[in-house]
Amino acid sequence: MRTYYCGELRTKHIGEIVTLYGWVDRRRDHGGVIFLDLRDRSGIVQIVSDPQRTPDSYEQANTLRNEYVIKVIGRVSQRPEESLNSRIPTGEIEIYADNIELLNAVRKQLPFQVSSSETDPVREDLRLKYRYLDLRRAQMTRNLQLRYQVVKAMRRYLEDIEGFVEVETPILTRSTPEGARDYLVPSRVNPGEWFALPQSPQLFKQLLMVSGFDRYYQIARCFRDEDLRADRQPEFTQLDMEMSFMSQEEIIELNENLVCHVFKTIKGIELQRPFPRLTYAEAMERYGSDKPDTRYGLELVNVSDVIKDCGFKVFRDAVTSGGIVKILPIPNGNEAISNVRIKPGGDLFKEASEAGAKGLAYIRVRDNGEIDTIGAIKDNLTEEQKQEILRRTGAKPGHLLLFGAGDAATVNKTLDRLRQVIAREFGLIDPDKINLLWITEFPMFEWNAEEKRLEALHHPFTAPHPDDLDDLKTARAQAYDLVFNGFEVGGGSLRIYQREIQQQVFDAIGLSSEEAQNKFGFLLEAFEYGTPPHGGIAYGLDRLVMLLAAEESIRDVMAFPKTQQARCLMTDAPSGVDAKQLKELHVTSTYKPKA
Amino acid sequence: MRTYYCGELRTKHIGEIVTLYGWVDRRRDHGGVIFLDLRDRSGIVQIVSDPQRTPDSYEQANTLRNEYVIKVIGRVSQRPEESLNSRIPTGEIEIYADNIELLNAVRKQLPFQVSSSETDPVREDLRLKYRYLDLRRAQMTRNLQLRYQVVKAMRRYLEDIEGFVEVETPILTRSTPEGARDYLVPSRVNPGEWFALPQSPQLFKQLLMVSGFDRYYQIARCFRDEDLRADRQPEFTQLDMEMSFMSQEEIIELNENLVCHVFKTIKGIELQRPFPRLTYAEAMERYGSDKPDTRYGLELVNVSDVIKDCGFKVFRDAVTSGGIVKILPIPNGNEAISNVRIKPGGDLFKEASEAGAKGLAYIRVRDNGEIDTIGAIKDNLTEEQKQEILRRTGAKPGHLLLFGAGDAATVNKTLDRLRQVIAREFGLIDPDKINLLWITEFPMFEWNAEEKRLEALHHPFTAPHPDDLDDLKTARAQAYDLVFNGFEVGGGSLRIYQREIQQQVFDAIGLSSEEAQNKFGFLLEAFEYGTPPHGGIAYGLDRLVMLLAAEESIRDVMAFPKTQQARCLMTDAPSGVDAKQLKELHVTSTYKPKA
Repeated sequence: MRTYYCGELRTKHIGEIVTLYGWVDRRRDHGGVIFLDLRDRSGIVQIVSDPQRTPDSYEQANTLRNEYVIKVIGRVSQRPEESLNSRIPTGEIEIYADNIELLNAVRKQLPFQVSSSETDPVREDLRLKYRYLDLRRAQMTRNLQLRYQVVKAMRRYLEDIEGFVEVETPILTRSTPEGARDYLVPSRVNPGEWFALPQSPQLFKQLLMVSGFDRYYQIARCFRDEDLRADRQPEFTQLDMEMSFMSQEEIIELNENLVCHVFKTIKGIELQRPFPRLTYAEAMERYGSDKPDTRYGLELVNVSDVIKDCGFKVFRDAVTSGGIVKILPIPNGNEAISNVRIKPGGDLFKEASEAGAKGLAYIRVRDNGEIDTIGAIKDNLTEEQKQEILRRTGAKPGHLLLFGAGDAATVNKTLDRLRQVIAREFGLIDPDKINLLWITEFPMFEWNAEEKRLEALHHPFTAPHPDDLDDLKTARAQAYDLVFNGFEVGGGSLRIYQREIQQQVFDAIGLSSEEAQNKFGFLLEAFEYGTPPHGGIAYGLDRLVMLLAAEESIRDVMAFPKTQQARCLMTDAPSGVDAKQLKELHVTSTYKPKA
Repeated sequence: MRTYYCGELRTKHIGEIVTLYGWVDRRRDHGGVIFLDLRDRSGIVQIVSDPQRTPDSYEQANTLRNEYVIKVIGRVSQRPEESLNSRIPTGEIEIYADNIELLNAVRKQLPFQVSSSETDPVREDLRLKYRYLDLRRAQMTRNLQLRYQVVKAMRRYLEDIEGFVEVETPILTRSTPEGARDYLVPSRVNPGEWFALPQSPQLFKQLLMVSGFDRYYQIARCFRDEDLRADRQPEFTQLDMEMSFMSQEEIIELNENLVCHVFKTIKGIELQRPFPRLTYAEAMERYGSDKPDTRYGLELVNVSDVIKDCGFKVFRDAVTSGGIVKILPIPNGNEAISNVRIKPGGDLFKEASEAGAKGLAYIRVRDNGEIDTIGAIKDNLTEEQKQEILRRTGAKPGHLLLFGAGDAATVNKTLDRLRQVIAREFGLIDPDKINLLWITEFPMFEWNAEEKRLEALHHPFTAPHPDDLDDLKTARAQAYDLVFNGFEVGGGSLRIYQREIQQQVFDAIGLSSEEAQNKFGFLLEAFEYGTPPHGGIAYGLDRLVMLLAAEESIRDVMAFPKTQQARCLMTDAPSGVDAKQLKELHVTSTYKPKA
């Protein structure tokens, strides 16, 4: 039986005979004395096997290679002065191995080095294929343990302090596509019919409120069959919560306390409460984003009113056709950013272009205070307009002003993107800073140009602001997102709990009564039987843990993630299946591989 | 803001002004004074609205009906002597309602009564269709909260006492059908290929051991597409555990401590450790079952050796053809059980017949000690044989002996079934008794007569007993099941961690190298890179909670279960889906409904 984990041993254990289990992280042979770094999930300890002092273990120690699994019995000893190692917690002691037992060897070439002492990056496809080896690496051991600690801290807070009850909701459920694509599962028992995997437990948690469960939470697996651009996964995990009889303010307060508890437990950091808030309108105005990174400035400045009558057609047309003109002011940008980078072919032009912008106007403020820009702007702005622009943007000698002009969505998207690029380039982001803020008062709907209809910005169960019931189409929602250093980590809302209002929202998004009845009839009916006012929130657990772990991909905080092609390289899923299986399910593939 | 839950209020709160939220469980009008039972998830409290004392709330109170959602502000008061109610925890107090606010009404006829005061059973199809109302009922509120408490107790023990780490494993994974049928999910991104939903996280948890996670647990959702005879669900939940470097004894001890912790926390019961154990062979011999209910006796007696040469052909043939003859001795069975019940057409004959038996021989011991049976037995057993049968079975006047004769599997199945029927009929089961026992030393394999091959009794990753490696086909496994009052609630084993042995097991079950490589290649390869000895266990959470809740169906301890036809009556899943969805997935249904 193990007496300690490797990483637990300290000078207070000196003299004890211990039994350890683990992997050979590294083996060194120093003049006939063998040193092993023995590793388990807790860390590393040094094992010594000396032909003089511990002859019984020496022969075995001599045969060991990296990643062999062994059992070691030995005595904890003080390291000699010259071999103290302050870089590891066990660096003051070592174990003289009386006995080493080989439990399992390595019989193939390791696809990459696992050892804690290796610092070379490993190709991600290899890491994913041999995930069981990758998870031995210090980075992943640490990340998955961090994830566990985060979930534990959440659970404990919700259960012990706030009286939430964990309830499991189904994975095999009904397809109600809204937003993303559903994963479907053919039913064998009910041929021709399909289950869907839940995009979130939204409907079930609302029904739990109808049931009187009052405060529900779940660490919930969710599924979205999206194209995996950026950092998405087919399945991901939410901390999902719902509560009855609480106002938006009360829900936000409870959630700030939850988040503070997590940061205190995990990072030892006391966050200040209340968290800052921005309305959606403010956030879009100042940052061009509803998830702004507020660790740095670079706020946008709207100059639509200044230049709406100006002679420069691009600006004037943008405003007169209902759009806007905004500026990203960049202190010290004049010197650092050449025209080449702003003009077609340049990296900043490309960023802007990918966000939908057609061009990137600029004004430079030279060191002597003179303004430098293209002729079309210089010649077509009045001195008054130029001065107002400088005044509003706070531009000083050395500033570069980048313009976005066009419809509001494109301008904001463009300048948000440039703002982030510039912040990184200029080193404006303090990695130790933690900025959490709420975005509130989202619009209920956004325009889906493709389908030519309004669609719910969050989801169609979000309650409209009570002041805005007269015109739902332009109403604000009682919705709130939590933003952490520029990432949306949580999103929630008060929900509709009255059938009439739910019907009005369905009307607004063009869902016919029949469709509504077909998809959500059970929810609408539930509203008839005494539904309490309620609201909730869901946190993207993977992303939150990623940020806490200072990683850049959610794949690095998941045990067995899929690639961007939605494949598991380890098990090689998805895969072909037996024809017999499909036959039993009454389904067939219509895919014809190209010859 | 709520100040208390309804069920929390006691005499110590008398005089406080409280704010409560909940549902009208019942309304009574006593001479103009209105009494409301207000219910939330914690219980019930009595609200009083009196036109004299609380005129402000009276008008509202008068309009309320069952299941309206309301907010109540009022003063906690001592109940008058004559209306004390000792049946509810809040029965000494009541709330004089200064203010009642209607939050939502009921606008349709309730499909069934929800009130705690209703005791009539409700049809299950209605309960499942209106699950959100069913969950308001005291039974379901209690059961789901119990389930939450059980899971919480498990987590806390494993995390705080035993150092287990929770890790999430994928739901979209690879199809490796073995045992039950897989649920399949078509991949849109990889057309023609399919994910499977996991029957258990078996392979992933073993790979986590290869990764050095050492002690893993998860409350894991599992999926099996089986025909839902008896009490099964398409998706169910396991407490799933795996651990490295531990012997079977150590794993069993840890698990007994876990189970003791759960019983102590949930029921306040101190279980005795160690739990009794039976080997599989003993359990089958004495009870005809590998999950015997040991709360009562009625042990089976094997008399094959006694009657192997007897003149009664049925018995003799059974033994000579490799089968057995066993007896279920029933004290006081002579009087209680008539021949009509034992003979064709009788209820006990039917039970036996459904288990595969062709008939049901018997011996009665009359009150005067005389033996009574059919002529064929009476005439064809020697006096010595008869006396030996009476001696072995401990038969006394009043006993009935029921015989099973034939192949061992059928005899055991028959007598196990009859034993349970008799125990219920004779009232031998003490519902307050808690019998937990381990079954050990299962055989590695059982014969699948249909496919004419051995198949793994547990699963093909189970380690054989080290003494039995010479002949794997007849080997015992290092497997252990936990049985609770006749239900298997947990099952586990040490796992194979050496590639050669894994290969031998695959050979034994007739899995070709190619198939093994195709299905489990990644696991076999993992064995090459330093796999530690490991083992684990999984508990059927639904069943365990069902037993702790003294319910008879796992549906009563799940929030949103499916019917035996694998349907959700509330959401009406599975359902038809848009042709567009299927087209995107490159699949189609081959089902042609009959005209």
